Formats: sequence, C-alpha cells, structure tokens
Amino acid sequence: MTADPIVTLTTDFGEESPYVAAMKGVILGINPRARLVDLGHQIPPQDVRQAAFFLAAAIPYHPPEAIHVVVVDPEVGTQRALLYVEAQGHRLLVPDNGCWTTLAKAAPPRVIRLTEPRFWRQPVSDTFHGRDILAAVAGHLSLGVAPELLGQRAESWTRLETPEPRREKNRITGEVVSIDRFGNLITNIAAAMLPNRPEAVRIGGRLCRGIRWARTYAEAKPGSLLALISSTGLLEIAVVRGRAAHRLRARIGTPVVVGWKR
Amino acid sequence: MTADPIVTLTTDFGEESPYVAAMKGVILGINPRARLVDLGHQIPPQDVRQAAFFLAAAIPYHPPEAIHVVVVDPEVGTQRALLYVEAQGHRLLVPDNGCWTTLAKAAPPRVIRLTEPRFWRQPVSDTFHGRDILAAVAGHLSLGVAPELLGQRAESWTRLETPEPRREKNRITGEVVSIDRFGNLITNIAAAMLPNRPEAVRIGGRLCRGIRWARTYAEAKPGSLLALISSTGLLEIAVVRGRAAHRLRARIGTPVVVGWKR
Amino acid sequence: MTADPIVTLTTDFGEESPYVAAMKGVILGINPRARLVDLGHQIPPQDVRQAAFFLAAAIPYHPPEAIHVVVVDPEVGTQRALLYVEAQGHRLLVPDNGCWTTLAKAAPPRVIRLTEPRFWRQPVSDTFHGRDILAAVAGHLSLGVAPELLGQRAESWTRLETPEPRREKNRITGEVVSIDRFGNLITNIAAAMLPNRPEAVRIGGRLCRGIRWARTYAEAKPGSLLALISSTGLLEIAVVRGRAAHRLRARIGTPVVVGWKR
Repeated sequence: MTADPIVTLTTDFGEESPYVAAMKGVILGINPRARLVDLGHQIPPQDVRQAAFFLAAAIPYHPPEAIHVVVVDPEVGTQRALLYVEAQGHRLLVPDNGCWTTLAKAAPPRVIRLTEPRFWRQPVSDTFHGRDILAAVAGHLSLGVAPELLGQRAESWTRLETPEPRREKNRITGEVVSIDRFGNLITNIAAAMLPNRPEAVRIGGRLCRGIRWARTYAEAKPGSLLALISSTGLLEIAVVRGRAAHRLRARIGTPVVVGWKR
Repeated sequence: MTADPIVTLTTDFGEESPYVAAMKGVILGINPRARLVDLGHQIPPQDVRQAAFFLAAAIPYHPPEAIHVVVVDPEVGTQRALLYVEAQGHRLLVPDNGCWTTLAKAAPPRVIRLTEPRFWRQPVSDTFHGRDILAAVAGHLSLGVAPELLGQRAESWTRLETPEPRREKNRITGEVVSIDRFGNLITNIAAAMLPNRPEAVRIGGRLCRGIRWARTYAEAKPGSLLALISSTGLLEIAVVRGRAAHRLRARIGTPVVVGWKR
Repeated sequence: MTADPIVTLTTDFGEESPYVAAMKGVILGINPRARLVDLGHQIPPQDVRQAAFFLAAAIPYHPPEAIHVVVVDPEVGTQRALLYVEAQGHRLLVPDNGCWTTLAKAAPPRVIRLTEPRFWRQPVSDTFHGRDILAAVAGHLSLGVAPELLGQRAESWTRLETPEPRREKNRITGEVVSIDRFGNLITNIAAAMLPNRPEAVRIGGRLCRGIRWARTYAEAKPGSLLALISSTGLLEIAVVRGRAAHRLRARIGTPVVVGWKR
C-alpha cells in the first residue's frame, strides 16, 4: 500500500492568525488522508525574495511525491495567476510571483495556470486565494487529480530577479541574502565562485579584521568572527557563540565583498 | 480502509515551553495512529476572546471527523468544567469558558461534561488539564470511544459575550476584534450589515480621510488606506504594503465607526 | 497493521530559516511514511540546558515507538559525537552534549555512537549534521533499521551538570530553570523536597511578601503572587493573570530560596 499523500505548507501568515489553520481544514476536508507538514509560516510578510530563498534551501531535500503549497502573495486578488509547477522533480502550488523560479534553473519546468474553478472552494474570496484556491487544489491533487485538468499549460511566468554577485579582477561583490536565528549572515556568494580562500572580507563597507576561515562554528574562541561555507554551499559569516548580524550591523541586502591581493 | 483520525491542537502555550509537546505525547501514547495537526499555539496568553475569534475563522473549514483540542484555560484547576462539544458538525474538547460558543449560533450544540476519570491521565495535575484530561480524552475519542461515555450531558455552559456592533440611524459602531501579521485590522462589522458602501470611516475617533473601498489589497498605491471585506466576511482596514495597525495606532478593541450622510 | 512510525523534532532553529523544513524533507525522502511531529523549534539558540529542561518535561509522555530527533548543537562539525540513545524506554537521536541525560536517571541507558556513514546523507556538510546525519538516520530507523547497525556501543558520554538545589537546616536554595509564555517561574526545587509548606520565599534576594500557597492559578485575585506545584512537580511562582517574571524581575538562573522559621 502506498503512503498517504504529503502536502507541505509554507506561508508568511505567522501562527497568531487563523489563516494557516483554515487552509489545513480545506485540505483535510477534501482529502482526510492528506498528511500535512509545516515547512514554515514565518516568511517575512509579503517578502517574495525571502520565500524564494527559503524554498531553494528546503524543497530540494523533499521527495517528489510531496505537494508543496506556498502562500506569500502580496498581489492576491489581482490579475496575477496561480500556478501548478513541476520543477526539478518537485511539485508546487504557488502564486505567479517568481518565488519558485530559482528551483528551476537546471531544466525547463512544467507550468499549468490554475483556471478550472471546479477544483476551488466556492465562493472564492478576493483576499485569501491560499485557502480558496491553492489549498483546495492541493487537496484534489493529493487525491490523484491529474495536473493537466487544473488548467492550461503556461509558457511564460514571472521570474524573480535575484541579485547576482559581481565578479571583478581581484574581488567578488555579493550581498547578505538571509540571516538565521543564530544571527549568521548567509550571502549569495557560492563556494564554487571562490578560486581559493579570499584574503579580505568587507561587510557593509567595513573591513572584517581578524576574520578567520573555518570549517564550522566552534573552531575558534567565543566571540571570534568566522567565514565558512554554509550547509547550502554559500559563503556565510558567523560569530562563535554570538550574532554576526548584530556585531556587524548587517541586514538583508548589506553588501559583502571578498577580495584577493592579486 | 478509513483514514487515521485527525486531532488538532489550538493553545496559548507558544512553542518555547514543553506544554504542547507533552500534550502530543499523551495523545500519541493513547492512540499512536492519531494524526496531529497544529492549528496555532500563539493565541495571546489566557485570551479567551481571541481564542473564540481564531476558532470561528478556522474550525468551519475542517471536516467533521477531526477532533479539535483547545487549551486557552485561565481557570485551570478551579471548578470550571471541561467539555466535549458537537457544534455545527464539528467536535471540540474545550474548557467551559465560552471559546467555542460563536461556532454554535445556528443550531443547538450537544455538550457533554467530562467527568469520567477513567479516560484521564493519572494523576491529574492541578495546573495542566490540557495534558491530563483534554489530550487524554482526545486520544480515547480518536480510538472510537463514544462521547456519551465521557460524562453527562450538560444543559448549560458559559457563553462568551462578544461585543456586537451598534447600529444607529446613519452609522454603525463596531470595534477591532483581531489584528493579523500584516497589521490588517479585522472588525466585528459583517459585510451583511452594510446596506451599501459607507461614506466615512472613523477608527479610534480618527476620521480616515482618503480611505478607499477596495476588493483586495493591491488595488492602490503602496501606502494607501483601504477598506475591504475580509476572507471571513468582515469589514477589514488595510494599508497597501504597509501596516494599518501601526498607521492608525489601533489595537484590539479600538472603536470603528462607519457612516453615511443619510 | 501497525501505525506508521512517529518521528518528532526538537530544535533551536526557529521557523524563519529553512533548516527544519530541510530536515523534514530528508526524513520523508528516506521514509515517505514517517509521521512528523513538531515538539518545538524555539529552544533558545545553542542553549543545551533549556533543551534538557524541555525534553525532560515532554519526552516522558510519549510512546516508546516514537523516534525523537533533537538538534541543539553548538559544537556541530567538531569532534563531538552524535548518539542514538535508549533511555527509560524512549529513543532519541542527539548530539553528545548531555541534553538527554536528565531523562536517564533511573536506569542505565543504551547508547550507540553514530559512525556508519551509509545511513547518512552524502555529502555531509560541516555545519548541519541535523540534516545530513540525524534526520537521515531517523529516516532509516523509522524504516526498521536495527540500532546496532548505526555504530558502536558507547560506554561514556557527556553528562549535563544541572544545578541541584542546596539544602540547609531551615531553607532550600534553588533557582529559576524555566520561564513559560505566561511569565511563570519554574524552579528546580521539587515538591518532594519540601517537608511542608515553606514559610517564606525569596527570589533574587527579594522577600516575596504576601505570597500565597495555592493549588492552581486562579485561586486568588488578579495580581496576587502565588507559589504552587507545577504540572511536572516543581515549585513554581506565578502571578494571577499577570507575569511573575516581570513582576519579580526574574530570569533563568535567578536564585530562589524557600525557608522555614525552624
């Protein structure tokens, strides 16, 4: 017997409001066998870029049978489309705002525009398509409805413009793209971009004197500033048992420059 | 084969403390097949009214087979009863504090007072009936124990007094009943109460000049003040890509007046 | 047919970051039937002692078939071991930092050092063993892999030194070990240590005049200071409908002294 279907949820709703709870009800109402998995509901409100970062670091680890519902949707109720996406072997239900496009860099995705109202909850509100359309469609998909029944194949969609690191002769300029609960700064500079260990690191214009290159967090005395490669292969700045974001007054978007003498 | 039983959890415990984790253990210890679904653990501490708002916006979307455990229980350990409730086709296990009564407006509920200690965890603590009684009873219910075995039918219970909007000749006075993570103000003025679009909105005594009536959030320039109908059919005040609660210095309970010239 | 296996997760990752979501993917990728249960992801960052308190108050309520994955791991990537532990009938996957040792006071645990890379996700990162080793091993264990295949039996491990209350002739000196979402102060003074009701309570050097001994929270007027026995059998200080932590300016580690006149 096959396992009951997995439906994951990623939103910017937080837990204080009943929005996630309502979505869960809609999914279970359509398919009481659905196994709900919370990925995270603390995406910063309406922050499509942070949603994209989150999904890129989480979805690739999931099995292909999971259905991933994503609701970070500042344009809800407007003409923006809702999509079923198959990308790199993963299946997502998302607003057409680009939150998923970094997942589909290696191969062309299959994208279907959700246009068939028979799979929606009625009446559809103007302000909560996550509940009325995405959750309802997820319920039907988890019952085995074929994706091609959900609507028509789309040939174009919104692509998220993510800041790419700039490479110059003897330096690379990137930026902080995420800050985790430990205050670690995750940058958009991939390990693969570094020909060898940089000789200097600047964050927000500030030269990080005494920064050490490390393999992991506990390799130096508490308070030491470290540069290391994160668990997703990106340059990361940390303070041993401390908070790099606080120490360096860094935020999402703060420039990070690594350089070599020649 | 039927689906494994669904048990949802709604509490004011937060996640920092081990209280929710202990309740989950008790349920799974009695019925290892129970499928646990978190609805939300960030109800403001001991705030029965916010719990009622949350449940009214979440439970109606759930299938009847779910068992909903609710622990917002400022009177734990006193003479207040614990209840099994069937209301509008939904089943809840709740403290007798009225948190569920807004769910049972259309039809009389079936209410049973939990008095049979054989379905409780022993010894029962004085301060955590959520773990020792409600979670344990949920486990047994999910195994198929008939509700009438849990105790005796109750004919009276605590009803939550919720503030009702006041209707005068050319205006309606309600209040903010919830603020979501986006800073949107959800009021207790139902769309059905509005004969047509009001001509003026006052929040906390402040006239909202330039407020626009909209269908959804992104219909005006960032920073615009909007009035719209929320996804649960209530008048809602929002700021496009901003936070209405902050902009209008509004809180739960802040008066909201909508008016017409005649 | 037996129930699908339960895998619980306890971390200090919060929900903002994709770390928990990635771990869930790894577990489900290995065993799509695993039933994931969140115990809590808000352990204070890198706080092994709070993790130990959390586990001691949550794990004992769980059934023996659950597999508990715990990731509070300040020493990730160093030589610290990762362990499979069977303690008091519970099964845990943990970093060797002592977070579990208070669970194993009554009987000697069975401890296996995770050394068999064939049960790990490859490549193993240096900074996220929770995902690459603990989650992967949990997936395999949930499929029925025998624990002895995971590595070699360990005879020694890190034990957490927890502060024990000091007993003097007519007083006991303990400390605050946890503060919950209600601001209640949970101390390390067990009910069993109190021969009878103390006559005085000092918190952080401040004599708590007018403190009442109570069975539960709502036994006195709002604002009253109460001493009671918590749901895990520890001395707890509370304010009726208020926050004891705020009122008494107490923190984790604040000394608590109870005394008798003779």
